Amino acid sequence: MRALDWNGRNLEFESAYRAPVAAGQIALVKVHLAGICSTDLQILNGYMGFTGVPGHEFVGNVVEGPQEIIGKRVVGEINFGCGRCDSCARGLSRHCPKRTVMGILNADGAFAECVSVPLANLHVVPEWVSDEEAVFTEPLAATFEILEQIQINPGDEIVVLGDGKLGALCAQVMHLASAHVTIVGKHEHNLRLIKQAGIRALPLEGWRLKQFDIVVEATGSASGLELALSAVRPRGTLVLKSTIAENHRVSLAPLVINEITVICSRCGLFPPALDALREKRISVAPLIEKIYPLHDGIEAVSHAARPGTRKILLKP
Amino acid sequence: MRALDWNGRNLEFESAYRAPVAAGQIALVKVHLAGICSTDLQILNGYMGFTGVPGHEFVGNVVEGPQEIIGKRVVGEINFGCGRCDSCARGLSRHCPKRTVMGILNADGAFAECVSVPLANLHVVPEWVSDEEAVFTEPLAATFEILEQIQINPGDEIVVLGDGKLGALCAQVMHLASAHVTIVGKHEHNLRLIKQAGIRALPLEGWRLKQFDIVVEATGSASGLELALSAVRPRGTLVLKSTIAENHRVSLAPLVINEITVICSRCGLFPPALDALREKRISVAPLIEKIYPLHDGIEAVSHAARPGTRKILLKP
Repeated sequence: MRALDWNGRNLEFESAYRAPVAAGQIALVKVHLAGICSTDLQILNGYMGFTGVPGHEFVGNVVEGPQEIIGKRVVGEINFGCGRCDSCARGLSRHCPKRTVMGILNADGAFAECVSVPLANLHVVPEWVSDEEAVFTEPLAATFEILEQIQINPGDEIVVLGDGKLGALCAQVMHLASAHVTIVGKHEHNLRLIKQAGIRALPLEGWRLKQFDIVVEATGSASGLELALSAVRPRGTLVLKSTIAENHRVSLAPLVINEITVICSRCGLFPPALDALREKRISVAPLIEKIYPLHDGIEAVSHAARPGTRKILLKP
Repeated sequence: MRALDWNGRNLEFESAYRAPVAAGQIALVKVHLAGICSTDLQILNGYMGFTGVPGHEFVGNVVEGPQEIIGKRVVGEINFGCGRCDSCARGLSRHCPKRTVMGILNADGAFAECVSVPLANLHVVPEWVSDEEAVFTEPLAATFEILEQIQINPGDEIVVLGDGKLGALCAQVMHLASAHVTIVGKHEHNLRLIKQAGIRALPLEGWRLKQFDIVVEATGSASGLELALSAVRPRGTLVLKSTIAENHRVSLAPLVINEITVICSRCGLFPPALDALREKRISVAPLIEKIYPLHDGIEAVSHAARPGTRKILLKP
């Protein structure tokens, strides 16, 4: 089949990549759309030492597997747990120590015609959610996770740092829980889009730093992290959403002195995200910048890597 | 009066240091005992840019102030809030942006004959708590703070890293809330003392790293922080107790990937600590290594700085 293949040095379009298989509890999904996210870009810089087909944001339809789901339009959770350990037993297969992760760790991903996914990971997409919306389920789920992890009190002042794809989703999700959300970013166009969702959006340049009850770090940069540390009030909450792969110098002393609670949040469960998309509570379509055919995947990736780029999708 | 004076370069014993005053809402306390803690040692390395009399752990009796408290034996909370800001109004004067802090920030401390303390900060010591116990109120309060910040579930496995004074207090306080507490440290004698309180105490050398639900970092060292990051299970809680003043290279990516909650905890309220001392639920006397007269304060400080040293006290 056709796929993008990362061999650890180069990303290449292969027209005869090994086809994934369906077997037992594994379904084969024909990919309609796949999203390129920052983690993919990090992987193409060596993160996780991954090789194979990247990509973990997708929507498609089941072409092989048990009869009752053949033809269903699905999205899929990306962590494939062993199903037998303590983590899996607690419903935390996304923390299973033996897990593989689609397009990230020992499992081929969705930048391909087809991807194989355990049945337990699949969620059927409601019919009034378009492919262009459904492909955002995974990053949106990761954002809804914040609402499970922290309690937002009425009147809490919240700031989201970073106006990229992740920031835009975070701001909208936080806005569901609080009327006092501000997003601060560098990209005028992105800020304008977020403002259309009724959220206060300010350019970083000229922003007068103030302190917030809750700060969501969604810049993915070391300087963003520094800013986040300055923007959280004593006894406030700092939410770290972006996996900043590089090491950087951070003094944790201010966290202790100001008694900050730091919540780290990565993957979430899909149902709240699919519900929000079905009910049109979150607007994702404006976040799409461009859809590339799979065979232009290398160009698509380099487009996605430009600062301020919104979501780039691949269509196999 | 006699006091230890830190001028930013040297610590000197002064026999004619300016005497503190009582005025309005400020009482003058004659110091019976003062404790040297790691923060004091950091201050003598330049931390906070403090100059003046260090020391913030003390017990003494009121010699000047309103009639009704003259002669009372007291301990004192160390943050002196402005009393008018939002933080003070919420009972968080320890986070008042205009606060001074005894022996740490713009306020002379307790390594002296007398120290002046706002009335609002004083707590009377119950008579069946000795001076040698009461002088531990401040660090013990900071430890009890953990129980306010996190919820400990039955069966939670807890590890305290570091067998110093802070670690020994943390282990005992966590042990009040959970039967499954382990402390890991480098100092055989300290570990033996902690074991006497019925707590599992293991030497770091040869310790087989495993993962815990809750990890309390009380080593104050960069390597301790690294160890703490490895010892907390996915979705677990990391409690940072020690203000590690130096910057060091920490990659926060593992925190996000494993969705760790980080609780930072510094100062606490005194009543739970005084209650625990009164009820003899925490044993502090074995933590005392030596009591020095104030005029030997410089020697006392250098003793306190030796690795593995338990609590050094000063007696003016």
